Amino acid sequence: MRIVELGERLLVEHISALLKNTTAGDDCAVIECGSEFLVVSTDMLHRKTDFPEQMSWYQIGWMSAAVNLSDVAAMGAKPVGLLFALGLPESVTVNLVDEMMEGITACADTVSCKVIGGDIDSHSELTIVGTALGKVNPSNILYRTGIKVGDVVCVTGSLGGAGAAIFALKHNMRCPEKLACRLFEPVPRIAEAVTIGKTKMATAMMDISDGLAASLYELSRANNHIGFSISAEKIPVNKDIEQLFSKEEALSLSLYEGGDFELLFTVQKDKVVELQKKVDFTVIGDVVEKGIVLEKTVSTGKIIIECLNDKGYEHIKSS
Amino acid sequence: MRIVELGERLLVEHISALLKNTTAGDDCAVIECGSEFLVVSTDMLHRKTDFPEQMSWYQIGWMSAAVNLSDVAAMGAKPVGLLFALGLPESVTVNLVDEMMEGITACADTVSCKVIGGDIDSHSELTIVGTALGKVNPSNILYRTGIKVGDVVCVTGSLGGAGAAIFALKHNMRCPEKLACRLFEPVPRIAEAVTIGKTKMATAMMDISDGLAASLYELSRANNHIGFSISAEKIPVNKDIEQLFSKEEALSLSLYEGGDFELLFTVQKDKVVELQKKVDFTVIGDVVEKGIVLEKTVSTGKIIIECLNDKGYEHIKSS
Repeated sequence: MRIVELGERLLVEHISALLKNTTAGDDCAVIECGSEFLVVSTDMLHRKTDFPEQMSWYQIGWMSAAVNLSDVAAMGAKPVGLLFALGLPESVTVNLVDEMMEGITACADTVSCKVIGGDIDSHSELTIVGTALGKVNPSNILYRTGIKVGDVVCVTGSLGGAGAAIFALKHNMRCPEKLACRLFEPVPRIAEAVTIGKTKMATAMMDISDGLAASLYELSRANNHIGFSISAEKIPVNKDIEQLFSKEEALSLSLYEGGDFELLFTVQKDKVVELQKKVDFTVIGDVVEKGIVLEKTVSTGKIIIECLNDKGYEHIKSS
Repeated sequence: MRIVELGERLLVEHISALLKNTTAGDDCAVIECGSEFLVVSTDMLHRKTDFPEQMSWYQIGWMSAAVNLSDVAAMGAKPVGLLFALGLPESVTVNLVDEMMEGITACADTVSCKVIGGDIDSHSELTIVGTALGKVNPSNILYRTGIKVGDVVCVTGSLGGAGAAIFALKHNMRCPEKLACRLFEPVPRIAEAVTIGKTKMATAMMDISDGLAASLYELSRANNHIGFSISAEKIPVNKDIEQLFSKEEALSLSLYEGGDFELLFTVQKDKVVELQKKVDFTVIGDVVEKGIVLEKTVSTGKIIIECLNDKGYEHIKSS
């Protein structure tokens, strides 16, 4: 069977089973580091799939740092270093490499992190593999598991902005700069993640860069197929896209397009008010026994419930 | 200027200067980890440059683990985990991925290390980026710096075996399996490296996978252009290649072809005998004020001295 017939998620599950890796599925691997935990994430990005022509080399660098730092954030950890393996086409100029490194360091600077190592290779296709390391106190770490029925579902920031930019790119629409920035220069939510971890009020966390719906399905699979009931009205749809798209379209972008580097986490219901004093976030629904559904109030005032689809960004699409 | 005009080494120096990264040049990045140091290495390998058609998928996996583990060894550290970002062409079958993972885990098993995480992506060209993590007591870590005039130069194992296999592949010669194994299934010298670090008798260390001569030049640059006088007769040329090549050819393969995953290190002269009781290695020369030279005894008994060339494996060849 070719891998494309299996699809990314099943291939990952297959390899994890081969490796008997019980921690697979979290955003980072975890190893002991004195009295702390060290978390490590690695992500491959490359020209064809991840860097549309409209992206500057600065943004390519920024994005490459952001994806890995966001994975570190997802565990509640503080980044302590980045490494990059760069596969560069031989025609690339040193100036472009400089621009890319500027983007990498600018993104890393926002979270006081440094590039500490790497590798350079020539490659037919621009390929950047970042590795991010972070540290977290073992009692503050957050995994994808640990969710209980009765917890509430929360997200940081707003959703749909990056998705709108993806839509604009696909359809050759003009894309407002603010939205292009959401897509091309995402800011990893390190400060929020570290605070959420420290308060010990959250029960699980992941980053949402593959899309909200797909991430809810991931959380469900990691927690014995637990369910989520999300309220459409509560989803913090990006204000800048409301003028460009209908309400339905904006909601769909917020649910099914990836690229927003926000945190998705669950919190014990009685801790929400206290946690909201420390971190900005929105409660978007509840953890329920089963089913991943969206509650919508329609114009008649009637509430309708629909199942969310398990779709979002897959790197290897199953055919 | 295009990167190919600059070449790999100068590009690495240029980027290190941009990043103000003072530890660049060592085999791994180093971060504090409780009372220990954590070392991290990342290496990109891909089909066109690193995996000739003759390599099996098992060997591709093995090699991908070995290059990173060897970097960890070079610092005297014990591996604690591996991550892999896999870029797979969509036509690849799950069976081949299984074979590759088998190779990865078989190599990792030789040094009691596990794969703890990774990423999977589709890619036009098979691309594997491994990240290896290791731990070492700060007083046992070995860098490329620290060499003093009067130290002796040492290598583990034998040289030229992998180079002979590269030569055979290039010239469509039959390659004895033992030599193909040297090239395709190199065994990282973890046990030796950890022992060398623990004894505190070595002054610097690196791995020699880019070739002996190129590695000596690397060590020289890291140590204020210190010199090395290597004795041709002392170089532990792989016994299996002596029957296939002339003495001169075998020496040249040992000096200038990479692929032997051995350790190159310097030791205080008065500690050599004691260290040899604990680790198998060969003293091949002396650290001198300057110049990187090879001493040869010719048939007349006369000793001739020639400069070694700074050549070996470069991933981005300068034009």
